[in-house]
Amino acid sequence: MSLGYIKTNALNHKTVHIVGKLPLAPMHCDERKYLIDGLQLITIMEKTSSDSLPLTVNSSEKHETVCIFGTGDFGRSLGLKMLQCGYSIVFGSRNPHMSSLLPSGAEVLSYSEAAQKSDVIIITVHREHYDFLTELIEVLNGKILVDVSNNLKINQYPESNAEYLAQLVPGARVVKAFNTISAWALQSGALDASRQVFVCGNDSKAKQRVMDIVRTLGLTPLDQGSLMAAKEIENYPLQLFPLWKFPFYLSAVLCAFLFFYCVIREVIYPYVHEKKDSTFRMAISIPNRVFPIAALTLLALVYLPGVIAAILQLYRGTKYRRFPDWLDHWMLCRKQLGLIALGFAFLHVIYTLVIPIRYYVRWMSRNMTITQATTKKENPFSTSTAWLNDSYISLGILGFFLFVLLGITSLPSVSNTVNWREFRFVQSKLGYLTLILCTAHTLVYGGKRFLSPSILRWYLPSAYVIALIIPCTVLVSKFILILPCIDRTLTRIRQGWERNSKSSKSALNGKTDI
Amino acid sequence: MSLGYIKTNALNHKTVHIVGKLPLAPMHCDERKYLIDGLQLITIMEKTSSDSLPLTVNSSEKHETVCIFGTGDFGRSLGLKMLQCGYSIVFGSRNPHMSSLLPSGAEVLSYSEAAQKSDVIIITVHREHYDFLTELIEVLNGKILVDVSNNLKINQYPESNAEYLAQLVPGARVVKAFNTISAWALQSGALDASRQVFVCGNDSKAKQRVMDIVRTLGLTPLDQGSLMAAKEIENYPLQLFPLWKFPFYLSAVLCAFLFFYCVIREVIYPYVHEKKDSTFRMAISIPNRVFPIAALTLLALVYLPGVIAAILQLYRGTKYRRFPDWLDHWMLCRKQLGLIALGFAFLHVIYTLVIPIRYYVRWMSRNMTITQATTKKENPFSTSTAWLNDSYISLGILGFFLFVLLGITSLPSVSNTVNWREFRFVQSKLGYLTLILCTAHTLVYGGKRFLSPSILRWYLPSAYVIALIIPCTVLVSKFILILPCIDRTLTRIRQGWERNSKSSKSALNGKTDI
Amino acid sequence: MSLGYIKTNALNHKTVHIVGKLPLAPMHCDERKYLIDGLQLITIMEKTSSDSLPLTVNSSEKHETVCIFGTGDFGRSLGLKMLQCGYSIVFGSRNPHMSSLLPSGAEVLSYSEAAQKSDVIIITVHREHYDFLTELIEVLNGKILVDVSNNLKINQYPESNAEYLAQLVPGARVVKAFNTISAWALQSGALDASRQVFVCGNDSKAKQRVMDIVRTLGLTPLDQGSLMAAKEIENYPLQLFPLWKFPFYLSAVLCAFLFFYCVIREVIYPYVHEKKDSTFRMAISIPNRVFPIAALTLLALVYLPGVIAAILQLYRGTKYRRFPDWLDHWMLCRKQLGLIALGFAFLHVIYTLVIPIRYYVRWMSRNMTITQATTKKENPFSTSTAWLNDSYISLGILGFFLFVLLGITSLPSVSNTVNWREFRFVQSKLGYLTLILCTAHTLVYGGKRFLSPSILRWYLPSAYVIALIIPCTVLVSKFILILPCIDRTLTRIRQGWERNSKSSKSALNGKTDI
Ligand SMILES: Cc1cc2nc3c(=O)[nH]c(=O)nc-3n(C[C@H](O)[C@H](O)[C@H](O)COP(=O)(O)OP(=O)(O)OC[C@H]3O[C@@H](n4cnc5c(N)ncnc54)[C@H](O)[C@@H]3O)c2cc1C
Ligand SMILES: Cc1cc2nc3c(=O)[nH]c(=O)nc-3n(C[C@H](O)[C@H](O)[C@H](O)COP(=O)(O)OP(=O)(O)OC[C@H]3O[C@@H](n4cnc5c(N)ncnc54)[C@H](O)[C@@H]3O)c2cc1C
Ligand SMILES: Cc1cc2nc3c(=O)[nH]c(=O)nc-3n(C[C@H](O)[C@H](O)[C@H](O)COP(=O)(O)OP(=O)(O)OC[C@H]3O[C@@H](n4cnc5c(N)ncnc54)[C@H](O)[C@@H]3O)c2cc1C
Ligand SMILES: NC(=O)c1ccc[n+]([C@@H]2O[C@H](COP(=O)([O-])OP(=O)(O)OC[C@H]3O[C@@H](n4cnc5c(N)ncnc54)[C@H](OP(=O)(O)O)[C@@H]3O)[C@@H](O)[C@H]2O)c1
Ligand SMILES: NC(=O)c1ccc[n+]([C@@H]2O[C@H](COP(=O)([O-])OP(=O)(O)OC[C@H]3O[C@@H](n4cnc5c(N)ncnc54)[C@H](OP(=O)(O)O)[C@@H]3O)[C@@H](O)[C@H]2O)c1
Ligand SMILES: NC(=O)c1ccc[n+]([C@@H]2O[C@H](COP(=O)([O-])OP(=O)(O)OC[C@H]3O[C@@H](n4cnc5c(N)ncnc54)[C@H](OP(=O)(O)O)[C@@H]3O)[C@@H](O)[C@H]2O)c1
Repeated sequence: MSLGYIKTNALNHKTVHIVGKLPLAPMHCDERKYLIDGLQLITIMEKTSSDSLPLTVNSSEKHETVCIFGTGDFGRSLGLKMLQCGYSIVFGSRNPHMSSLLPSGAEVLSYSEAAQKSDVIIITVHREHYDFLTELIEVLNGKILVDVSNNLKINQYPESNAEYLAQLVPGARVVKAFNTISAWALQSGALDASRQVFVCGNDSKAKQRVMDIVRTLGLTPLDQGSLMAAKEIENYPLQLFPLWKFPFYLSAVLCAFLFFYCVIREVIYPYVHEKKDSTFRMAISIPNRVFPIAALTLLALVYLPGVIAAILQLYRGTKYRRFPDWLDHWMLCRKQLGLIALGFAFLHVIYTLVIPIRYYVRWMSRNMTITQATTKKENPFSTSTAWLNDSYISLGILGFFLFVLLGITSLPSVSNTVNWREFRFVQSKLGYLTLILCTAHTLVYGGKRFLSPSILRWYLPSAYVIALIIPCTVLVSKFILILPCIDRTLTRIRQGWERNSKSSKSALNGKTDI
Repeated sequence: MSLGYIKTNALNHKTVHIVGKLPLAPMHCDERKYLIDGLQLITIMEKTSSDSLPLTVNSSEKHETVCIFGTGDFGRSLGLKMLQCGYSIVFGSRNPHMSSLLPSGAEVLSYSEAAQKSDVIIITVHREHYDFLTELIEVLNGKILVDVSNNLKINQYPESNAEYLAQLVPGARVVKAFNTISAWALQSGALDASRQVFVCGNDSKAKQRVMDIVRTLGLTPLDQGSLMAAKEIENYPLQLFPLWKFPFYLSAVLCAFLFFYCVIREVIYPYVHEKKDSTFRMAISIPNRVFPIAALTLLALVYLPGVIAAILQLYRGTKYRRFPDWLDHWMLCRKQLGLIALGFAFLHVIYTLVIPIRYYVRWMSRNMTITQATTKKENPFSTSTAWLNDSYISLGILGFFLFVLLGITSLPSVSNTVNWREFRFVQSKLGYLTLILCTAHTLVYGGKRFLSPSILRWYLPSAYVIALIIPCTVLVSKFILILPCIDRTLTRIRQGWERNSKSSKSALNGKTDI
Repeated sequence: MSLGYIKTNALNHKTVHIVGKLPLAPMHCDERKYLIDGLQLITIMEKTSSDSLPLTVNSSEKHETVCIFGTGDFGRSLGLKMLQCGYSIVFGSRNPHMSSLLPSGAEVLSYSEAAQKSDVIIITVHREHYDFLTELIEVLNGKILVDVSNNLKINQYPESNAEYLAQLVPGARVVKAFNTISAWALQSGALDASRQVFVCGNDSKAKQRVMDIVRTLGLTPLDQGSLMAAKEIENYPLQLFPLWKFPFYLSAVLCAFLFFYCVIREVIYPYVHEKKDSTFRMAISIPNRVFPIAALTLLALVYLPGVIAAILQLYRGTKYRRFPDWLDHWMLCRKQLGLIALGFAFLHVIYTLVIPIRYYVRWMSRNMTITQATTKKENPFSTSTAWLNDSYISLGILGFFLFVLLGITSLPSVSNTVNWREFRFVQSKLGYLTLILCTAHTLVYGGKRFLSPSILRWYLPSAYVIALIIPCTVLVSKFILILPCIDRTLTRIRQGWERNSKSSKSALNGKTDI
């Protein structure tokens, strides 16, 4: 340890307890105040040294020296942050003299020298360059190596980077951490998604120490178990809403199809037959046909796989066989399907509520009134029309209300507070009720028009007729499934009973089915 | 350990690291890919064996053997899942030869033989059949017994199942876990409410080991402390929204009452007096009277218990005496009351916004215009009516806005990020502001009509008059309570001062009241 | 230990297992049932003693004796609660005989006597009175001291109370805890914000023990690391939405300005020029001008700092220099700005949707119809007006929809489940899309009117013209920044490259930019 370093380090220690005294942002150590500039640090230190206490020196002396391998973007950012939180930092670098960019207060040594300074070594080097570590095997023996690396693609290598590191340096205790944090997040400390640090490792002492560092930096460590979890942790930051992809594309295709269907019926058809320019309908009227249909269809598609699964279980007579892949996948993305359906329902509601504000609607209504006034035609009040009209509106509102409830319970913090039974109650029972209400809303809306052939244009039925196919199928099948005789068999299967097994115990008596 | 077993086990080990290499779902071990079928496992193994590494064998060897007692639904599901996550499983069974249904790769032995194979024994047997364990007391000595059992009713037995188990096998270290997870959730791994596993136990080492298993299975362990918590953990999955029951029934009764009240005034009365068929009003008009009244009344009922509690504390001169049971219970379900009120308010808003779309309203408005046009009656603009009308709408909107804010802050993840002072600020201060705005909305809506006796029908006042009783009472009482003289006494009482205590220190000076 | 005490304690032990048997509220020990009254306790005990089991005595004997220093409000509440959870409590007090107010079952001794009874001592005394502890240094040696104190002001003292305590009693192991819980919350156990207890300390064993106590009381301990975090933990309960202050005041000023601007143009101007009384516009029409403008401006202000930061980084050629303070602060409160903007947008939506219900609007529309009917003037349908009108409504709805999405992803529980990339995708990409949609909504709304000079009143342009300045600036600047040539440099800078550094490696090849 050079004398120069001792000075810097001492200076740094003093800084630490100042930082410890003036936290402003909701973080354990305020990284925002003393960035990089060594002189600035000293100034502040002298300003507050009057109230320095013996104890604080002690408390900061507790902080150990940590070694960081690699002086790239992430190494620098992490080193700076750790310095500010009271750690002494020793960088290991291929070129220990190129230290101009490094945070002041840190020492830079060669890799092997640096490794000797500390028990904990953070490897901020890309996996591709890990080879040089094999030369350090001896000095790294027993040390805690923290692997922070990410890859460019999901499952790029057969084994995770951390496992690869553990294999390269068998004597070391490898811990995976920090890979979900970006260099920028460490520097700016602002955005929200960045606080969680997944940690895993086979040595629980080593893991604990890394988790303590994470905590001191103001981040939230999450213990993910053994090093086997590293693969997943490494894939995590590369994902972009994987479960949303299928529902998203499905609904995009559905919307596009419905949009063109409606354009044909409501824009092209009138143009061809009556030379009427209805293109403006594409801004509100047609979206307001597409969205409710998409919402209802997607909602039905949420409950369809459950029905199929039940039929499959009944048919197979056991629940201990895997569903086909497509069904499995479909069941896994029901939440996402449901939430997209909710989005469409929300849009439908607003598009409906703006109807009376639209120029077209106001113009129509005024014209009708004037025509009626001038022609003096009677327009008697029809109670049945009022009933029909009010009913479908009311059904729609109630359906939407339950829909929103479903959405709220699927917020992670809400679903975490309910137990299994409650979750099933809301998602399954209320979910079906929502489906029933929304289907009824569409049925009553269609009303008597279903029967009249005049709704066909170029043999195309009105769009909401299409909307009803899947929901009605689902509801009818579900209705059959809950008939007592069928339901009883299904319940037994779900409790572990198997039709083809000779030794199947009638396990029904007195079981809690959660 | 039989030779056959060793083979299966080895096979299983190999499988494990393959599973470890290809995780797809966000779980530590992907249980979806290799269900049950032993042959399938081998196929996959051979496909990927090309990239097998020496290290992986090591890493999976770290996984211990776990014993599962009972080969029922839950035992099988858990065993399969654990096998997939790299554990070696030994089942204990009354009938070790009936192994056809069991996941391949697991060994099945008698209970006593199986117990010898492992330190950790998971008891997937119903509590009623625990007796056989007394015979195994010796072999179970010092072992970790995991109790997973649930009951059929809340508080079915005087002591929790886990405590009962600890008592049966005094030498064992009992840990409660897994009871909130259903067998199906383990197999399908899809639904959300299922990830949390409450763990409790008196031996913290044992608890740690079980929590590690939980984590490896991709679930979230939550340490709940000592075995005393087992009772609660066992009751948890049996609950169905216990705190929502009272608010729910209350609001159901309230709505039913208001509905009939309005039907009498607005449907039956006109029918009797004018032979007018207004039944269609039951679909929208009457609900849109019931919902706002229910919302306002429930909102007032949220703040009423606080007022009563304050009066009680003032009267008693101390805060160290329990409130009567009914008040206690009422105060505990205020959140639920408030959220139901918010639901009604939401419905009221949408029911109001659809007004101009309704056939009845459009028909009325058209008719009025035509009548006016033909009779050429003047209809001068009344600024005061415009003021009144716009004011109550504006008050309502602002009230609803704050209402929604209250709702958002009561989301668990939001309320966890605010401190006590902030929570009180929002819930108490903004809550009262909401109540004031909503009451004012109703008052201004009623406007001058309150004074006219014509609003009585069959001596029944208009429904919104009823709506105002409780809110006004609450607001007036609260206003009295915050008069400086009364408030001062109350503040002192809340800081621990007692009127009747001689030694009461004037504890007011310089205290933080959070 | 006096004989009297032993008896009380024994009684208490029995109570404990009863409490353990009858939990009703979702807490580990039900504090609601047995408040204060010793006699009541006995009654209940005898009622249920029939089913008492040998084991329960054992299990409660495991609970240790805890000492509480100070018999004030907090000490009493905590003691009572701990008694109910099975702990034996010894109070330390200046005046051990004034025990009338104390929970029955607890012993009261002098400070030094009490300290000898237990390893864990909770100091419920104000920091100002800590001096007496210096006299007890010897007896406190090696003990766990729990500091629960709060201050009156943020950063009142140079070092935290807990660190001060550690300095006063150097031999003790100090743990900070419980300060976020109020005495009332302990007694009533009802409100939500109160469950989290931040714990910190340098001795991890001591911390673990305190966390166990916290858990047993039914609260949620959160490990915050070493004692350095105490300062922040102590400041936490004193904060009142610190990050919301600036956004709140900014938007208040903005609203006030816009309100007066609109009043001048829309109320005073018509009054002066046409003697028309339009004051009623202040209830809805003017707010509905103010809110959307405020929403759009604030939304633009969310994205402006990012643009400024990028320009600054480009200009400086490095990302390793701190932004000026104002920019830093601005960037930290973007979330709050965005959520307030969302609030205004929400209000704008509802204020717009109620338009057709307003008396003024209905009156206007009726009058126009009648005028048209009587004058028999033609009013031909204009497709271009319909297009314009429908487009800006549709743009507005879609913008609002994305706005709500942004709001939902900023819920803590949702943002915790997305990774960095996903969060950036939603917040940055969808955020800009929202800004574009909302700006377009305003532009199309203005339509051709921008060009006509008639919109000037007293040389004041219409308010929405003002609304467009900042959004358009932001969008144009952002557009320039994403031009490939500029974007490339910026990306390099963000990956750690520095323009002025000679040793700057071209670090672009193969990097994961998260
Ligand atoms: C707005 C909205 C939000 C949503 N949010 C979520 C969410 O957050 N999380 C979520 O998971 N879903 C969510 N969904 C989707 C949906 O509501 C749920 O998946 C719902 O539980 C499906 O109910 P179900 O009865 O069809 O299916 P399930 O209850 O899953 O049953 C489907 C099939 O699985 C089999 N099965 C079920 N239980 C057992 C058992 N015990 N043993 C053996 N086999 C069994 C049966 O064959 C059954 O038919 C949401 C939907 C919407 C509309
Ligand atoms: C939409 C909505 C959502 C809601 N969400 C929630 C929620 O998530 N969680 C929740 O708890 N409530 C919730 N509520 C209910 C309600 O807003 C809160 O309970 C609110 O805090 C009640 O305020 P208060 O001032 O009446 O009662 P409190 O502040 O609880 O006071 C009630 C009485 O308790 C006594 N008291 C209070 N403080 C002390 C003290 N320090 N010392 C001694 N005695 C004291 C006094 O007698 C006081 O009058 C919600 C309400 C609504 C409408
Ligand atoms: C309704 C609503 C809710 C919101 N909720 C949240 C929320 O919960 N949390 C939140 O944080 N914000 C929230 N916001 C604010 C806003 O959406 C986000 O801050 C958003 O990420 C800003 O995007 P940006 O592209 O302007 O800024 P950023 O992505 O932060 O970029 C700003 C500047 O920082 C610099 N920079 C960024 N990344 C790097 C890097 N990797 N390396 C070097 N320099 C870099 C660049 O100079 C860049 O121009 C919310 C906004 C709204 C409207
Ligand atoms: N940047 C982020 O936001 C971020 C976030 C999470 C994780 N990570 C991970 O952190 C690691 C480093 O990322 P980075 O962005 O800091 O990368 P970088 O800027 O390219 O730095 C890599 C460093 O590795 C060192 N190194 C050692 N041997 C090397 C060799 N043969 N060739 C090149 N460099 C060598 C170099 O330091 P010396 O010159 O001093 O030897 C170099 O500065 C990566 O594994 C990355 O996945 C980065
Ligand atoms: N099913 C769930 O979803 C679920 C969820 C959480 C918790 N649990 C709990 O898990 C435990 C097992 O539930 P389960 O659904 O698996 O029950 P199950 O299907 O009825 O199986 C119970 C098993 O217990 C064994 N057993 C031992 N002695 C017995 C006896 N005298 N009589 C009958 N069986 C005896 C049997 O295995 P052998 O024949 O091999 O001896 C039997 O298979 C219960 O405590 C339950 O509360 C279940
Ligand atoms: N009240 C709350 O809601 C709350 C919440 C969180 C944290 N706290 C913290 O808990 C601590 C106690 O608060 P509190 O509300 O219980 O205060 P309090 O009612 O004023 O009680 C303070 C106690 O300190 C003891 N004490 C010892 N030396 C003293 C001295 N020289 N002068 C006065 N009292 C002395 C007294 O007990 P003896 O007479 O028995 O000696 C007195 O009862 C404070 O640090 C506070 O910040 C309170």
